[in-house]
Amino acid sequence: MSLPGQLTPSPRLLLGPGPSDAHPRVLSAMTTPLLGHLDPQFLQIMTETQEMLRLTYRTANRLTIPVSATGMAGMETCLVNLVEPGDRAVVCTKGFFGQRMVEVAGRAGAEVTVLERPWGQVFDLDQIRDTLKQVRPKVLGIVQAETSTGAWQPIEQLGKLCHEFDTLLIVDAVTSLGCVPVEVDRWELDAVYSCTQKGLGCPPGLSPVTFSDRAVAALKARKTKVQSWYLDLSLIESYWGGDRAYHHTAPITMTYALREGLRIVLEEGLEARWDRHVRNHKALKAGLQALGLSYIAAEGHQLPQLNAVRLPDGVDDAAGRKQLLADFGIEVGGGLGDFKGKAWRIGLMGYNSRPNCVVQVLASLEQVLRTQGSKVEPGAGVAAAEKVYTAG
Amino acid sequence: MSLPGQLTPSPRLLLGPGPSDAHPRVLSAMTTPLLGHLDPQFLQIMTETQEMLRLTYRTANRLTIPVSATGMAGMETCLVNLVEPGDRAVVCTKGFFGQRMVEVAGRAGAEVTVLERPWGQVFDLDQIRDTLKQVRPKVLGIVQAETSTGAWQPIEQLGKLCHEFDTLLIVDAVTSLGCVPVEVDRWELDAVYSCTQKGLGCPPGLSPVTFSDRAVAALKARKTKVQSWYLDLSLIESYWGGDRAYHHTAPITMTYALREGLRIVLEEGLEARWDRHVRNHKALKAGLQALGLSYIAAEGHQLPQLNAVRLPDGVDDAAGRKQLLADFGIEVGGGLGDFKGKAWRIGLMGYNSRPNCVVQVLASLEQVLRTQGSKVEPGAGVAAAEKVYTAG
Repeated sequence: MSLPGQLTPSPRLLLGPGPSDAHPRVLSAMTTPLLGHLDPQFLQIMTETQEMLRLTYRTANRLTIPVSATGMAGMETCLVNLVEPGDRAVVCTKGFFGQRMVEVAGRAGAEVTVLERPWGQVFDLDQIRDTLKQVRPKVLGIVQAETSTGAWQPIEQLGKLCHEFDTLLIVDAVTSLGCVPVEVDRWELDAVYSCTQKGLGCPPGLSPVTFSDRAVAALKARKTKVQSWYLDLSLIESYWGGDRAYHHTAPITMTYALREGLRIVLEEGLEARWDRHVRNHKALKAGLQALGLSYIAAEGHQLPQLNAVRLPDGVDDAAGRKQLLADFGIEVGGGLGDFKGKAWRIGLMGYNSRPNCVVQVLASLEQVLRTQGSKVEPGAGVAAAEKVYTAG
Repeated sequence: MSLPGQLTPSPRLLLGPGPSDAHPRVLSAMTTPLLGHLDPQFLQIMTETQEMLRLTYRTANRLTIPVSATGMAGMETCLVNLVEPGDRAVVCTKGFFGQRMVEVAGRAGAEVTVLERPWGQVFDLDQIRDTLKQVRPKVLGIVQAETSTGAWQPIEQLGKLCHEFDTLLIVDAVTSLGCVPVEVDRWELDAVYSCTQKGLGCPPGLSPVTFSDRAVAALKARKTKVQSWYLDLSLIESYWGGDRAYHHTAPITMTYALREGLRIVLEEGLEARWDRHVRNHKALKAGLQALGLSYIAAEGHQLPQLNAVRLPDGVDDAAGRKQLLADFGIEVGGGLGDFKGKAWRIGLMGYNSRPNCVVQVLASLEQVLRTQGSKVEPGAGVAAAEKVYTAG
């Protein structure tokens, strides 16, 4: 085999469900030479990163750390640490990632009760209350931002409700953190996980996790060892907490990246960042609608950072996305599950929630749709978006 | 809280047990903008990375992939995929990382038989044969390069021996891959895991794992699901294998890093790289001995990439390493377990196995030892090393 050459990928604009483009400052930070994982200067960087993660999660939770693996490992971390074999779990599914939580909870030994809503819809509190009353589970898991459908699940009151039944609330914030509010303390969320490659503007590789005091108490009260040694928070906590006891070698460079990503998030300010996501979403939405694309999620439950829209009749999913990538270097996501071949998912996440991303994707989509025979007036999408920006 | 400033760590030379410094070309590659994890160009990068990993592991194993987490997750991957609850496992321990394998195997549900040697020593085949005969385990786990003691376990004949008893051989190559020979196919190793931050000259973050056909057959014959969803190789394989089925978002940037690290390894050539590690080790060893430092591991079983030496009487471990870091920016490792406070571990791994690292650490050690009252002749360590280099 002759060795492959230097890395020279084509330029891309990542407007799919993630990864989203990393902020250039984050990529620069990753060239910083390594420190040892027990170097006093690295321990300081860990402390700073944790403190900024707490601010971003709006929590005072001591146990707030980036798990050394990608977002799905964050899901597994929450479940294997809080569930012991035979524990009852309720998982709310309304798309792909809820279903995945069912699978992971099952492998952790939970007796899982699945609460279902059709893909693209969200749950209301009453439905969940009935199930909590009936099942009295140890944990309830729900996805705040369902990446497969673009549906935005309200969770403001859910923690309080769960605590009435002595249930711990696990929230998937993979596609929400850094894009829309995730108020861990105010909403009484017990275990939350996210990722680095979406709202935080970093490459994929870490999963920020936070555990409430209630969750930590449940962890301490376990009768069995956590099945995963690598994801055992009681061990990881002694490294990230005060003791600095060696557990595994922290991913130094990804920690540099996360630190820089969080600095950027907090320099902008969370409210300003959430507003920015809404503003660009509104412009994109006006443009998409002008192109004849309608949202899967109902009005009022559409995620600003993930715009999942139905394809017009006659438009071929794969051919369209292929053209978008080949001619314009733009990646959007295809549909999953119930929406396979029938939807596109357009992300405006973190660094990529910008007006120039909005107009680029709209202009490119127009051409792709026209290639496929859609009767779209030239400039219609961009014009509609610009109108929104101009109106402020 | 005022936000922390830009990342400006002090310059370091990482000559401990790992992480070792990443090659500058690897750090540069990490600034490459992201591709999506299903982008055809990224799929090509995955294929290239796998192919280079196979060459580095000296294997044709189809199931050869970087697990999306650090080296310890590689250990867990091998164990949870090959062990089902109640399976018998033999783990050979002669230091810290063998003991860790016992813990991880136990959590995977194995009935573990521990075969022990004193810290710093190695096993001979006869001792292992007796245990295999008696226990007839499904798997036997052993550490090739015990990072806690610097002892080099011969494993050339071990695969053949294990197979006589229908046992799968799991090898920890965390501190060996890219430094000393790891001949997966020729030595009949069944499941091997390593890391990126030592012999491969990358930051920590991935764990290269390879499974033989025998191991894959055992994986396919499982009656129970792998307890970890994140580390389930039957699922991960459909992403890295032909199907490209989405499992989790691959750590794009770390994959770029690994690809570049492997290119550098293979440009140099494995034999040349192994020779380089031996050459620099010999020079360092001559220097250390001139400074009155003796190896923990016996002659013939000393790892070239990890030189674990006893501290002379009267030398304070913590104070010495602190001075080395503060005055010279050099990190070496302290002792672990039986050798806590009594040993230093000096790594010359991958990119850092270089003559300039050898002379720097020797010159700095001299001064540290003198500060602590040792009667070391000025220049004695460096002179001894240079003599070795000059002799060729």
